[in-house]
Amino acid sequence: MELLKEALSSISPLDMDSQKKAQERLDNLIKPPGSLGRLEEICVQLAGIYGSMFFSTEKKAILAFAADHGVFEEGVSPCPQDITKIQIPNFVRGITGVGSLARFANAKIIAVDVGVNCDEELEGVINKKIRKGTSNLAVGAAMTREEAIRCLEIGIETVNDAVNEGITVVGIGEMGISNTTPTSAIISLYGNYTPLEVTGMGAGLDKDAVLKKASVIERSLHINKPDKNDPVDVLSKIGGFEIGAMAGAIIGAAAKKIPVVIDGFISYSSTLLALKLCPQVRDYIIPSHFSAEPASKKAFDLLDLKPMLTMDMRLGEGSGAALCFNLIEASNFMYKNMKTFEEVEMEYPKDEILRANETHKKIL
Amino acid sequence: MELLKEALSSISPLDMDSQKKAQERLDNLIKPPGSLGRLEEICVQLAGIYGSMFFSTEKKAILAFAADHGVFEEGVSPCPQDITKIQIPNFVRGITGVGSLARFANAKIIAVDVGVNCDEELEGVINKKIRKGTSNLAVGAAMTREEAIRCLEIGIETVNDAVNEGITVVGIGEMGISNTTPTSAIISLYGNYTPLEVTGMGAGLDKDAVLKKASVIERSLHINKPDKNDPVDVLSKIGGFEIGAMAGAIIGAAAKKIPVVIDGFISYSSTLLALKLCPQVRDYIIPSHFSAEPASKKAFDLLDLKPMLTMDMRLGEGSGAALCFNLIEASNFMYKNMKTFEEVEMEYPKDEILRANETHKKIL
Repeated sequence: MELLKEALSSISPLDMDSQKKAQERLDNLIKPPGSLGRLEEICVQLAGIYGSMFFSTEKKAILAFAADHGVFEEGVSPCPQDITKIQIPNFVRGITGVGSLARFANAKIIAVDVGVNCDEELEGVINKKIRKGTSNLAVGAAMTREEAIRCLEIGIETVNDAVNEGITVVGIGEMGISNTTPTSAIISLYGNYTPLEVTGMGAGLDKDAVLKKASVIERSLHINKPDKNDPVDVLSKIGGFEIGAMAGAIIGAAAKKIPVVIDGFISYSSTLLALKLCPQVRDYIIPSHFSAEPASKKAFDLLDLKPMLTMDMRLGEGSGAALCFNLIEASNFMYKNMKTFEEVEMEYPKDEILRANETHKKIL
Repeated sequence: MELLKEALSSISPLDMDSQKKAQERLDNLIKPPGSLGRLEEICVQLAGIYGSMFFSTEKKAILAFAADHGVFEEGVSPCPQDITKIQIPNFVRGITGVGSLARFANAKIIAVDVGVNCDEELEGVINKKIRKGTSNLAVGAAMTREEAIRCLEIGIETVNDAVNEGITVVGIGEMGISNTTPTSAIISLYGNYTPLEVTGMGAGLDKDAVLKKASVIERSLHINKPDKNDPVDVLSKIGGFEIGAMAGAIIGAAAKKIPVVIDGFISYSSTLLALKLCPQVRDYIIPSHFSAEPASKKAFDLLDLKPMLTMDMRLGEGSGAALCFNLIEASNFMYKNMKTFEEVEMEYPKDEILRANETHKKIL
């Protein structure tokens, strides 16, 4: 509990002075001010996060948390449960979706077992197993309150260790057969949506199986009555260990003043929990992609974040976060390598365009 | 005219056999089939384009065409016209938006003067000047029919030269002060939209200036009466030299069987013209980003293409295409480096998931 409290209390607003300097540089680069949109916004955000006008975004890691789910026994996934334990070491071997995309992005994968249903050690995976999967949330609480705090703290610990290794950009990822079920439950709860409105095919359920999955989620909410105003209660009753660990990683990143790139559908529920625990973490989050799960639009409305990539991806693992790393590095490269109007001695109606930009903002 | 005819006649459908082999490999990679969405689609498309199950996407170039516009005299841009001639050499120097982003992507920039309003040679820029800018489309045709064909052919020539150099992926870009005006005119014409519905701030006009720009576009359509059924007539009456050259580059890429990544707003009008000249070119196009210009949604509806990046960018130059190169290379890297179920001896309900995917497709 101390680690969580400490992390939450050390989250502070972004450095406005560095943001202002970054914005000034961006407005002076040889282009219409604002015309590089999100690439410019990322630079301003990063300047505020790092507290410095210039910064490095090369040392990146995907923090991938794996766990199993008691709700698997309700038949909510087309996959056998042991895919969790088989796949998480494959992340580190670089041969899964996120494994290959992280290698492509020159990012490390730090994989953590927070609750995989197995006794053996998993090759290349850090063992922080809480227990061998959550309890079935359709019949009772997924985990105890202590376990919920523990998985949040595992996320924080993982960020702290990564930062000690020199990592300055993290993305979050996960592996856990059945984890779209707790995710949809959390989004249903916070958004006041019916379970059916926020339930999708996951790894690949047909339409009938999706209906059944929605009814399982309905039951989990009815039986557990999670308290919206207490995110730890929500996590313990209808969450998952890897969902909590990712929420913890978001909090940990904000506490350590590094950006955290969120991934797809599962990560949206982690982000919701992190924002409920500390709204200020928003400033440290970089949204990556719009998942193909049908509730993604609703989730992003709740999060009040806008993804940059629309790839129809629904793999999870951290694959979307890894793909987004490149956009961050492209932003930083542009920011450092474009020349200013002064450097090339160009006459440009910069101030006129800045004023025009304002007239458009007023209407939006 | 011969070069254009020849290119158009050599455009053929994609190689279905290679596409089938690529799809089979993708379905066998260790993930739920289809779960990597657009990344998978890109691989299938590229296999079809190259006519080979495996392919290289490393040698990339942005083909950037620069030209000036007679309609500049109507006051449709906040920028002085000489920004065109000042900026195009800066592309090649790597210090503009596309210059820096292409460097980041390890892509070459091939810059071509198709009609810049200057007498001097532009450093690092290939001189294929048709004349020093189009005529004012608000008072008559922007160019002759012969000039329209010439700029299309310059696009084709540029692709041919790039392919001879070993380039296997091209993106298109442009520089031309006032070129959102002809672009909006073309989109207005083909989409039956009022000019005001498809006119935006360009480099940075305030709201009043946008209204004036829309009235200029209105006039250009009224005076010129371009024939929708004749894309060369449309290009000659309300187009621009760089718009035609980009349309030609799309046709040239399809003729040479290499993918062409389109860019932002200006490129949408080029893509429309290319599709009208030869609908088959669609198979060779990879859309990149959703421009912040307000008519982008309407343009993509007309094009029937879906961009992958939503970056609120409105710079043009080829900056969005350069940013998209990385997504293409990430797709290819994933495709080559992920392992198959057989390779890792994993039991997986692949066929069940493929069947489930079909039930969702039927509903969509």
